[in-house]
Amino acid sequence: MVTTARQYIAAQADQVILELSEYFGSHLQTKRAIREQFSRDESAHTPVLPDAVVAVASTEEVCRVVTACSHWQVPVVAYGTGTALEGQAIAVAGGLTLDMSAMNRVLEVHQDDLDAVVQPRVTRRQLNEYLKDSGLFFSVDPGADASLGGMAATRASGTNTVRYGSMRENVLSMEVVLADGRVIRTSRRARKSAAGYDLTHLFVGSEGTLGIITELTLRLFGQPEAISAAVCPFAEVEGAVRTAIETIQSGIPVARIELVDDVSMQAINRYSGTDYVEQPTLFLEFHGSAKSVREQAQMVQVIAADHGGSDFQWALKPEDRHRLWRARHDMAYAGKALLPQSRIWATDVCVPISRLAECIVETRRDIQREKLLAPMVGHVGDGNFHLVLLVDHQDPKQVNKAQDLHERMVMRALALGGTCTGEHGVGLGKKDFLQAEHGEALSVMYSIKQALDPQNIMNPGKMLPDRQ
Amino acid sequence: MVTTARQYIAAQADQVILELSEYFGSHLQTKRAIREQFSRDESAHTPVLPDAVVAVASTEEVCRVVTACSHWQVPVVAYGTGTALEGQAIAVAGGLTLDMSAMNRVLEVHQDDLDAVVQPRVTRRQLNEYLKDSGLFFSVDPGADASLGGMAATRASGTNTVRYGSMRENVLSMEVVLADGRVIRTSRRARKSAAGYDLTHLFVGSEGTLGIITELTLRLFGQPEAISAAVCPFAEVEGAVRTAIETIQSGIPVARIELVDDVSMQAINRYSGTDYVEQPTLFLEFHGSAKSVREQAQMVQVIAADHGGSDFQWALKPEDRHRLWRARHDMAYAGKALLPQSRIWATDVCVPISRLAECIVETRRDIQREKLLAPMVGHVGDGNFHLVLLVDHQDPKQVNKAQDLHERMVMRALALGGTCTGEHGVGLGKKDFLQAEHGEALSVMYSIKQALDPQNIMNPGKMLPDRQ
Repeated sequence: MVTTARQYIAAQADQVILELSEYFGSHLQTKRAIREQFSRDESAHTPVLPDAVVAVASTEEVCRVVTACSHWQVPVVAYGTGTALEGQAIAVAGGLTLDMSAMNRVLEVHQDDLDAVVQPRVTRRQLNEYLKDSGLFFSVDPGADASLGGMAATRASGTNTVRYGSMRENVLSMEVVLADGRVIRTSRRARKSAAGYDLTHLFVGSEGTLGIITELTLRLFGQPEAISAAVCPFAEVEGAVRTAIETIQSGIPVARIELVDDVSMQAINRYSGTDYVEQPTLFLEFHGSAKSVREQAQMVQVIAADHGGSDFQWALKPEDRHRLWRARHDMAYAGKALLPQSRIWATDVCVPISRLAECIVETRRDIQREKLLAPMVGHVGDGNFHLVLLVDHQDPKQVNKAQDLHERMVMRALALGGTCTGEHGVGLGKKDFLQAEHGEALSVMYSIKQALDPQNIMNPGKMLPDRQ
Repeated sequence: MVTTARQYIAAQADQVILELSEYFGSHLQTKRAIREQFSRDESAHTPVLPDAVVAVASTEEVCRVVTACSHWQVPVVAYGTGTALEGQAIAVAGGLTLDMSAMNRVLEVHQDDLDAVVQPRVTRRQLNEYLKDSGLFFSVDPGADASLGGMAATRASGTNTVRYGSMRENVLSMEVVLADGRVIRTSRRARKSAAGYDLTHLFVGSEGTLGIITELTLRLFGQPEAISAAVCPFAEVEGAVRTAIETIQSGIPVARIELVDDVSMQAINRYSGTDYVEQPTLFLEFHGSAKSVREQAQMVQVIAADHGGSDFQWALKPEDRHRLWRARHDMAYAGKALLPQSRIWATDVCVPISRLAECIVETRRDIQREKLLAPMVGHVGDGNFHLVLLVDHQDPKQVNKAQDLHERMVMRALALGGTCTGEHGVGLGKKDFLQAEHGEALSVMYSIKQALDPQNIMNPGKMLPDRQ
């Protein structure tokens, strides 16, 4: 007898499984071990088992699954690399999870058009490996080797967004399977268009709640002729942020401009046995001609000196560049090592850059007051920063403190004209802030969801807060 | 007695006028002379009189009008500078036209954030005039001194999109009045966000069919330290396009790269008494440091020489730059002068740049075959080109020929992976191509329209083709 909503969905899912099992055979799995594998992502959100995992290999197969799920009103979630940070691929309501692994081919590279057409499970490193000898590269770099479909679905960005844009700017077109099994292409391959509603941007960042991405056309850039890197510690966060602001105002096309705070620099020294100055530090990278990357670094050095950046080091050769940036790359491990028994809770907010120093300083003060451990790194060019909360989940008091701090940080960012997430997405972790962030606009989001997924089968329970 | 749909709307509009007249007084006009003034734009589309014109001065006043129109199911259209090229602001179904003239204030400039908050009737030149001493500028330049609200509504772009992006990339957030009078803000002022559906991009390019834009937050750039300009004729269109492709592939951050075809160069010589080589010609502009703009021009010169670009001239001083670019600026007048009794029919398509030469050459051949006059200019960096059809509207045969040619050009662009309009928008002139361009995706556009404007009062008859 069906007694709960979860059991109801499981029973409906059984119908879907029955309907699909002949076609999919061993590609449709209900074994617990497989379901467990697809129950979690990199976040601390509680894993949930889907009712089945189906490995799809084509748009037609995605259609087949979605059509069956639509018929039986069963939730469907696409799962890429599982590197989401807000639980976006966790099947919180059960239903079917799509294992996209087999949709991992680069389909076309248009050298002259600077674009590539890929299947959604191609990862960003895989694409760049493929492009290695073409003179082109794909720019968006969120850290993890995420799938490009997942990156589009969560509107990912990363360290070089300040120069090349986020997924918002780098997805030219997508093929999407809608909730009723229809297949659409969101746009033509042309670089720009003024022909109709911008469906590409509607699906970028929709976190699987409007449809399943089955193909992407991505913007590429020419590999820079030369790269230079620089590192510069500052007495205060304000000086580092001011340097970022003036660098951008001056039109210096900085490729990366990352802030690592003093707590993080301490963590790195402790972890790597290095002796960096334990102050807020900017890590920079410049792309361009050999002449230009030299000039760019020199210009930033002058700006930094005006704002308390005293020990500006820069390098052109790959090995020297890597040495300079090593600390930034070690951050993930170094942070975790501060409190080995902790789980990492990575979160981010983004504010107008003029309010960034204020937001960081106040958040840092709050962390100290609460005696929490939380290294901080920022994509300062975008006004975006990450907090890596190290929380001992055995300690409920600490967990509570961390939750309260997190909420205060988000509300602080909103009060400063910012957003509750710059790049991690909403998923499960930021749902409760969407009303505060968007107000009446949230009702428009509900209308769109209702129009395109009236049965609420596409990744239900994510992004949009549950209606009261 | 009401006998036609048009009369029905007029009768309903009378109710709205009655309801609003006390509040708006002389700001609500039904005089024929005023209605005529707001009945047309710069296109050749047939003017249509709205039932009334109401001058609004605030978001609250826009709400008031839209709420009344919603109550009586009366169409409402926002009118900015009337510089649209596809009839976007023509009240084809009658109803009320909003005269936005009074909403023309620059509200805030955030120097450090590189953004400005403006009312929708601020024009792009007005904003740049306002910014003159700030070291910042607003980049999007469609030629006409259009209102920024209108530019956002039509997803305008222009000559320097290749470097700075179109309205798609340069609108950070908007305030919009919806069909039922609700007011939303599409996004926060932060540079990026992963929090919810991208409503900003949904409203950019929606041509007033989903809501009325009442405020915009726009991205600004630092004024470049130096500008250089260059001009180079090519034996063939292919060489010019190849030069554009390799320039972009090389990562040279060219600010403008315009193609003027041989017919246009002839027209310019005839009009201005100049003696330019009558060949396809590239007009370029470079922004950057003094060193960098020199280097950029030199690099392009080398590329151009590889592709039959023989007489590369470049200049740094403002007066020399203006002399070099003069021909490009004279195009509008020179074209018209070719056939003084003609009306100008300006249209555009956009294709992947790899197919641009082919699309241009075949279209040019088609024009010659039909013995039509149609100078052509292209934003080649974007794969976008414009045809300026000079048509004697007294000659029905010529009008027919031009219409057929226009249709063939659009279908050719679509067949090459392109779009029916890169920057002019759909309005009335491109509606019939949306099905061919978008296929099933068009049904998603209808769903969105239905969800946000169920009564179809927001600029009805535009963009989306009439359902059969």
